Amino acid sequence: MTARIVEVRQAVLKKNDLAARALRARWAGGPLVVSLVSSPGAGKTTLLAATLARLRAEGAAVAALVGDLATDRDARALAATGAPARQITTGTVCHLDAEMVAAHLDGWPPATGDGGEGAVAAGVDTLDYLFIENVGNLVCPSSYDLGEDLRAVLLSVTEGEDKPLKYPTIFNTSDLALITKTDLAAAAGFDRAAALANLEAVRPGMAVLEVSAKSGAGMEAWLELLRTRQPEKARRASITAAP
Amino acid sequence: MTARIVEVRQAVLKKNDLAARALRARWAGGPLVVSLVSSPGAGKTTLLAATLARLRAEGAAVAALVGDLATDRDARALAATGAPARQITTGTVCHLDAEMVAAHLDGWPPATGDGGEGAVAAGVDTLDYLFIENVGNLVCPSSYDLGEDLRAVLLSVTEGEDKPLKYPTIFNTSDLALITKTDLAAAAGFDRAAALANLEAVRPGMAVLEVSAKSGAGMEAWLELLRTRQPEKARRASITAAP
Repeated sequence: MTARIVEVRQAVLKKNDLAARALRARWAGGPLVVSLVSSPGAGKTTLLAATLARLRAEGAAVAALVGDLATDRDARALAATGAPARQITTGTVCHLDAEMVAAHLDGWPPATGDGGEGAVAAGVDTLDYLFIENVGNLVCPSSYDLGEDLRAVLLSVTEGEDKPLKYPTIFNTSDLALITKTDLAAAAGFDRAAALANLEAVRPGMAVLEVSAKSGAGMEAWLELLRTRQPEKARRASITAAP
Repeated sequence: MTARIVEVRQAVLKKNDLAARALRARWAGGPLVVSLVSSPGAGKTTLLAATLARLRAEGAAVAALVGDLATDRDARALAATGAPARQITTGTVCHLDAEMVAAHLDGWPPATGDGGEGAVAAGVDTLDYLFIENVGNLVCPSSYDLGEDLRAVLLSVTEGEDKPLKYPTIFNTSDLALITKTDLAAAAGFDRAAALANLEAVRPGMAVLEVSAKSGAGMEAWLELLRTRQPEKARRASITAAP
């Protein structure tokens, strides 16, 4: 039975890898695609809402896909920023896969806005940034490539400094760690040195940013990282923003 | 492919149900078996350590099995209470199953102590309470019966009041909700009424307790619930504690 499960799982992953490759090819000249993974409640949606709002304010075309087992609460919360946001409901599945992402791109996002700042032309390929918020889970998403350029794993100061050691795969398959809810660090008794040491132990040299979407602390460094990873789009944004 | 996965999954679950039934039969006259499920970092290990210490102090024989993908950190943290604690390392699997539990019971726990308070005779069947801490995950553990008498789902005040709506199955398959880290409620801006309403919406009439293992608030109500669920063991403990 176990051998058969492994066999099916490998076939699923191979199929996912092909779908992810197709997405990556499609987006080669398109948006910077950033996925967010974390425990439930580590602050993905709150960080993403703040990120969308700021990027839109500087003229970037942004949109978000968001995965959840049930409800479209996150998509509605994100849409409140004015950015197009689309929910992918997974039912009982504990992660997004590349085919789910591909299946939600047809005719999306629709053209929005008046052509001014933050306006979005029709179609995902016209975006500057596409964000994909995965289902809250530190295990399942690690095995599924979504064709993203950058995978950021969030670790909130309230969930314990040992998470990188206990869930090594998700940290190993991420490009960047975001320590979130730093406004609660003192109240939670967060041991910053231990958290950084544990990240370094699991993935030596991993980039780490510390942010609070609530207070705004660290947000500029996160946005600057996004702008830097998409030089062409960053240039366009800076021209738009020039006096 | 999807049909085949569903088929394999059903076979796995059926096999698990048989193993869980065998555990439940084994424990019919034995310990009260309580499993804990939650997001990573909701405070299962901290709550469990406080629970083990208090139950031991009143003379109960307690032990804990704890699941994690990697490391034996949680078992070591729990063993510091003096209670036998054994790690089940799942590798890449996002949940415990009944066979994993069964495979970790042979010769465990060994006899400990001097026969006084908190002493443990050899074998799980001699315990008053057995706790099973699942892998931190709000999705995968919901489908796997572990033969427990009581499944408690933890929801920390820092992870968002909407989790019951977003992960309904794990809340639906639990007997009790524990709102944890209440000492952080004010700092996190926790909306208690919304959390309670969301729990009620997903599982009407669900028992809810609010606890802080850090401050001790609410711990007595949680312990009283455990004692009440195991009347025979509670009676034995109260006789031992009598002057």
